Amino acid sequence: MTTQRVWTAAVVVIGDEILSGRTQDKNVAQLATWLNDQGIRLAEVRIVPDDEQRIVEAVNALRPVHDYLFTTGGIGPTHDDITVDAIAAAFAVPVVVHPAARAILEDYYRDRPGGLNDARLRMARVPEGAELLRNPSSGAPGVKIDNVYILAGVPHIAASMIEALTGKLEGGRPMVSITVGARAAESEVAELLRETEAAHPGVAIGSYPFFKDGRYGANFVIRSDDGDLARQVGDTLAGHLRDAGYEPVEGGI
Amino acid sequence: MTTQRVWTAAVVVIGDEILSGRTQDKNVAQLATWLNDQGIRLAEVRIVPDDEQRIVEAVNALRPVHDYLFTTGGIGPTHDDITVDAIAAAFAVPVVVHPAARAILEDYYRDRPGGLNDARLRMARVPEGAELLRNPSSGAPGVKIDNVYILAGVPHIAASMIEALTGKLEGGRPMVSITVGARAAESEVAELLRETEAAHPGVAIGSYPFFKDGRYGANFVIRSDDGDLARQVGDTLAGHLRDAGYEPVEGGI
Repeated sequence: MTTQRVWTAAVVVIGDEILSGRTQDKNVAQLATWLNDQGIRLAEVRIVPDDEQRIVEAVNALRPVHDYLFTTGGIGPTHDDITVDAIAAAFAVPVVVHPAARAILEDYYRDRPGGLNDARLRMARVPEGAELLRNPSSGAPGVKIDNVYILAGVPHIAASMIEALTGKLEGGRPMVSITVGARAAESEVAELLRETEAAHPGVAIGSYPFFKDGRYGANFVIRSDDGDLARQVGDTLAGHLRDAGYEPVEGGI
Repeated sequence: MTTQRVWTAAVVVIGDEILSGRTQDKNVAQLATWLNDQGIRLAEVRIVPDDEQRIVEAVNALRPVHDYLFTTGGIGPTHDDITVDAIAAAFAVPVVVHPAARAILEDYYRDRPGGLNDARLRMARVPEGAELLRNPSSGAPGVKIDNVYILAGVPHIAASMIEALTGKLEGGRPMVSITVGARAAESEVAELLRETEAAHPGVAIGSYPFFKDGRYGANFVIRSDDGDLARQVGDTLAGHLRDAGYEPVEGGI
């Protein structure tokens, strides 16, 4: 077995609207999938309110222990958008207007009603020393300081910001997930799963029950950063399940 | 202004499948909404992997500082279900088989294929000193120890467990949210929002932009535990927006 560097990331979701139940978060799932494609493991998520102290605590707990930290939310033009101030406080640096961000916003709002007013100019504010992240879908850029990536909260804007970062972050091997679905109650095959995992170091097997078309079943997910090994263990497990008489569900549900 | 006790809760979501992006979490949103109805504020969420040490850290960081802590996931019959062991470790107590949980499972599996096998019996294990939480939708009960509520990860099972707890937890006044929608760019009305919030202590106003039917708009969410005040501020804000010429969007989007 070879030991290799594992790259990890954490996400801090900033948003009263998530904690109140008003809005269903979609950024964690899309960041998780994208990070894995970059060879970076999403290791922890914290969802915190629009409160500077709480944001600072989460950011400063996570940024020293992960290669990357992403925040989502709170970078718009209104008074409840306090992420930049909070990250600046976390780094103990002042907030400054970034000249390039200002230029982007001047250009973006030149022909729009209202022009570059004070509220919009807020979106050019960054922690001192920060760089900009490209925002292909609307005017205001994201912000990067040290290993912290400050993204928008609106999911399609966050998606375009990470899309623009694709291939630019150092990472390792992506985790490969193989799903084996079967009309098996997971509690009937628990021992088989345990033995299969134990027999294959470097592989983790998760078991996720489902109820569909009036019948129970489960998805068994084999994860490894060795894709060939994951596929081989998937085939082995699928064979065992077939031999035991369980109807397969191709690709899972 | 009266000062009153605010009850808070935290949630620890336990699940490699959430952090890998395979599964979209739905428990945070449903817990958030339900907690608010109980007069309890969801103050923080952490999503951690299926790793005992990481679960223990999150649970022991959060349970002393909130009135309630809920965990979701990892209480099934398979080897990757380690939540009970992790919570027992967090409380430094052994894991024991709960006689009433065993009786529930014996009853549930009596006429089912395979009967109460070893894997299913795992679901009767609890941290020593724990009570059971009713599970109206499948056999295995949830678990409560001290202020920690251990729920299933499958959303409809978690939902039935909290439904069974409705009205049983001590809480304060629910936060009332009033949504005022308008075809306004939030950056054009940022100052109005700031002034409206500043003029009404005890009220927080969030601004959430949307893009619908080819046009921009925003939902302005007025939150207060004083429902009459929230409604009054909502009416005031809606009036200001109408006066400024913005087309209202009834109830928001």
